[in-house]
Amino acid sequence: MAQELVNPTLGKDLVGLEELTREQITAILDTAETFKEISERPVRKVPFLRGRTVVNAFFENSTRTRVSFEFAEKRMGADTVSISTSGSSVQKGETLVDTARNLEAMRIDMVVIRHASSGSAKFLADRIESHVINAGDGKHEHPTQGLLDLLTIRDHRGPIEGLKVCICGDVLHSRVARSNIHGLKRLGAQVAVCGPLTLMPADVADLGVHWFRRIEEAIEWADVLNVLRLQLERMKAGFIPSLREYNRIFGVTRARVEAAPRDVLILHPGPMNRGVEIDSDVADGPHSVILQQVTNGVAVRMAVLYLLAGGPAQDVEAAA
Amino acid sequence: MAQELVNPTLGKDLVGLEELTREQITAILDTAETFKEISERPVRKVPFLRGRTVVNAFFENSTRTRVSFEFAEKRMGADTVSISTSGSSVQKGETLVDTARNLEAMRIDMVVIRHASSGSAKFLADRIESHVINAGDGKHEHPTQGLLDLLTIRDHRGPIEGLKVCICGDVLHSRVARSNIHGLKRLGAQVAVCGPLTLMPADVADLGVHWFRRIEEAIEWADVLNVLRLQLERMKAGFIPSLREYNRIFGVTRARVEAAPRDVLILHPGPMNRGVEIDSDVADGPHSVILQQVTNGVAVRMAVLYLLAGGPAQDVEAAA
Amino acid sequence: MAQELVNPTLGKDLVGLEELTREQITAILDTAETFKEISERPVRKVPFLRGRTVVNAFFENSTRTRVSFEFAEKRMGADTVSISTSGSSVQKGETLVDTARNLEAMRIDMVVIRHASSGSAKFLADRIESHVINAGDGKHEHPTQGLLDLLTIRDHRGPIEGLKVCICGDVLHSRVARSNIHGLKRLGAQVAVCGPLTLMPADVADLGVHWFRRIEEAIEWADVLNVLRLQLERMKAGFIPSLREYNRIFGVTRARVEAAPRDVLILHPGPMNRGVEIDSDVADGPHSVILQQVTNGVAVRMAVLYLLAGGPAQDVEAAA
Repeated sequence: MAQELVNPTLGKDLVGLEELTREQITAILDTAETFKEISERPVRKVPFLRGRTVVNAFFENSTRTRVSFEFAEKRMGADTVSISTSGSSVQKGETLVDTARNLEAMRIDMVVIRHASSGSAKFLADRIESHVINAGDGKHEHPTQGLLDLLTIRDHRGPIEGLKVCICGDVLHSRVARSNIHGLKRLGAQVAVCGPLTLMPADVADLGVHWFRRIEEAIEWADVLNVLRLQLERMKAGFIPSLREYNRIFGVTRARVEAAPRDVLILHPGPMNRGVEIDSDVADGPHSVILQQVTNGVAVRMAVLYLLAGGPAQDVEAAA
Repeated sequence: MAQELVNPTLGKDLVGLEELTREQITAILDTAETFKEISERPVRKVPFLRGRTVVNAFFENSTRTRVSFEFAEKRMGADTVSISTSGSSVQKGETLVDTARNLEAMRIDMVVIRHASSGSAKFLADRIESHVINAGDGKHEHPTQGLLDLLTIRDHRGPIEGLKVCICGDVLHSRVARSNIHGLKRLGAQVAVCGPLTLMPADVADLGVHWFRRIEEAIEWADVLNVLRLQLERMKAGFIPSLREYNRIFGVTRARVEAAPRDVLILHPGPMNRGVEIDSDVADGPHSVILQQVTNGVAVRMAVLYLLAGGPAQDVEAAA
Repeated sequence: MAQELVNPTLGKDLVGLEELTREQITAILDTAETFKEISERPVRKVPFLRGRTVVNAFFENSTRTRVSFEFAEKRMGADTVSISTSGSSVQKGETLVDTARNLEAMRIDMVVIRHASSGSAKFLADRIESHVINAGDGKHEHPTQGLLDLLTIRDHRGPIEGLKVCICGDVLHSRVARSNIHGLKRLGAQVAVCGPLTLMPADVADLGVHWFRRIEEAIEWADVLNVLRLQLERMKAGFIPSLREYNRIFGVTRARVEAAPRDVLILHPGPMNRGVEIDSDVADGPHSVILQQVTNGVAVRMAVLYLLAGGPAQDVEAAA
């Protein structure tokens, strides 16, 4: 039943940007562009998913991603239900697949899943007919975050092709980093990373990206900085000596940004640790597009929902 | 206000199957039959409960029942609000009746309640004018589960009258068992139970059902097995010696099912403990209708909502 | 974007009753009056907020206020999303302002906020363009509760002007007391408080209200008693010697109410501690309007949503 809705341009699921072609990514971004306008209307509502059923299965804590998906779904007219770990059958020891098969048996159209295990979204997508959207799986990918980052960069710097983008901070543990790297490279950007050795993946060389050891060098090189959140738990685990030390060496500060040879664009996926990986006067300053990322997040998620549900790419206005 | 909506075929509330006549149960099943089709449409939406207000009050953890009710309500067009123990006034020491009276004062149409205390649904139904649907009260009843089991059996084996149905496992603690026994007997089935002495109610004789001590005998006798979930906490409490031992003696295994003299239908209310009360190759095998139970659950709940709200029995299509 | 919707009669936000004029309070009450009828219809739905987006940000536990707001929003046709402390970015150390800016970047129309910090609603309202409604901030204000109390008093005793209203109990910790005092005085009532010294604010004299040390004196004087909930934690903290002692001296009992020289109206914001600050035969007796407060709560919240969203005061029926 769900199968007849599969969109040839996108496939059944959105598990990661690694699996998408340049054309597919561009189709999502172009479609999101037309959805932006809907959230600016007084009546933020289009009926594309009316009577469709979406389950938001967030097995890890989240506000911004969950709320962004919920608004995207509700503005499309879908009926939504949320499940989370606390209060769920998962606590009763049910497997993820049994939970998903049960949801599917209720005739749902889509599952948005966030889960602590890398690969959980793909695992699920392979086992149910409903569309699966990965909202973050362990350290693997967070594709809608990658897409909203791409859309925000494109909005401000034009085509991604040839742009120099540096991802700064805890690349080792970051699914945001991984989705960004795949998406940016697919669209032809030059990608680098910057951070301490302890926060780089063992295979940093295999990622095909340059590794800057010093933030000043990264800023000198880059058109765009995507500053990752530093998980504060990392410090206790010994990955970094102290937050102050991290800020001193890797913090994106106003002085460093102003010393850049060009107008560097600053992104951050949030939530920010102000004064750690990024200073407040950068986060709230003229180079920052952090809130536009959030705005674009809703549009990107509407586009993904729309395309997976079978809507024609880009042609939202005609369909509306 | 709610009273004028009372449906003569069903009454104000659904507290248990013990109180229903054969005609009432049949009316719900027949109405559910016509609702099944709605969940198979691309637009799964009918306006029967538009502008009606439903509170889902789940004071015990639940995913599948809560989600099934939420989808049933939303597909009927109702406005829903959820409350749970954590974060509720119940934590502030408010009584169940005060909570319910307050909800009713907000002009709600229905309360779906799950609560750890046997009798809580009836207690509530007697004290408020809004319709009350029991979604599981302690060890007493779980009537919509009983109804969906009946519907699933009827779908596959025709009229319930005369069928041999055995309920296997922890009958002592199971509200699912109790609703099944009442519903099945009301429709004329022969009902038996199977499980260890420690998991049988003291009044097992009074239930008017045969008690099989050995699963092989139950399978040899039955047309239908309804395999209950074994609460894993029971082992710690000394009701069973070990999970492995339980599986060895009472587990519904492939070998046992294949040795049956006839094509036995396998139900399970979920969540399953695979490898304990049921083996995976039975749960996912050709005799299992476990996922169809879940699908039927939404239709049964839509039917109950519809009938309590005053819709004429069976005549859904004419009303739509 | 949100700014063009600002209603001149109410302003952008509802932070407290202290900031409102008599005319503004009366406009809300009069508008609420016309909304009452909508919750009595079989189809409790008006499209005033269709396509508008409301976030319910409850960073403190709440059932009744949250559910009341949710029903008000849904009956107005709004799309709603809830966030709470558990599971939110607030746990990741994000500031309230970052959370709010992010929500705003998703193009929301309103935030309903409950927070343990006094001043948090104003803090938020000053920093985002979306409308902010205070659903209780620390010990500061709970304006919609104050408004629903005013509406209930007006329903039963006519104009507030000149009425004698006594607020009984834990005035020190109560945002309900503060909103009541501001609202009642603005509308011309005579206001008093009654309770032990330990539960009176240090500046009780500055509130401009009389302080009754004995409940009998308060009841003899008052037309209306608003009996506050006694937070049971207070006893452990040493504010009162015991619950029994509190009930003996300050409890609103049947004998005390019947000894009153006039027909005293009894309000309580809930949840009640029956047998502590109020006895059951008073709470459920002929003087009590406690459930009508709850009913009025939905109407008051619909009115506030409607007026903040730009609807003309009072003229709901013409607009519908």
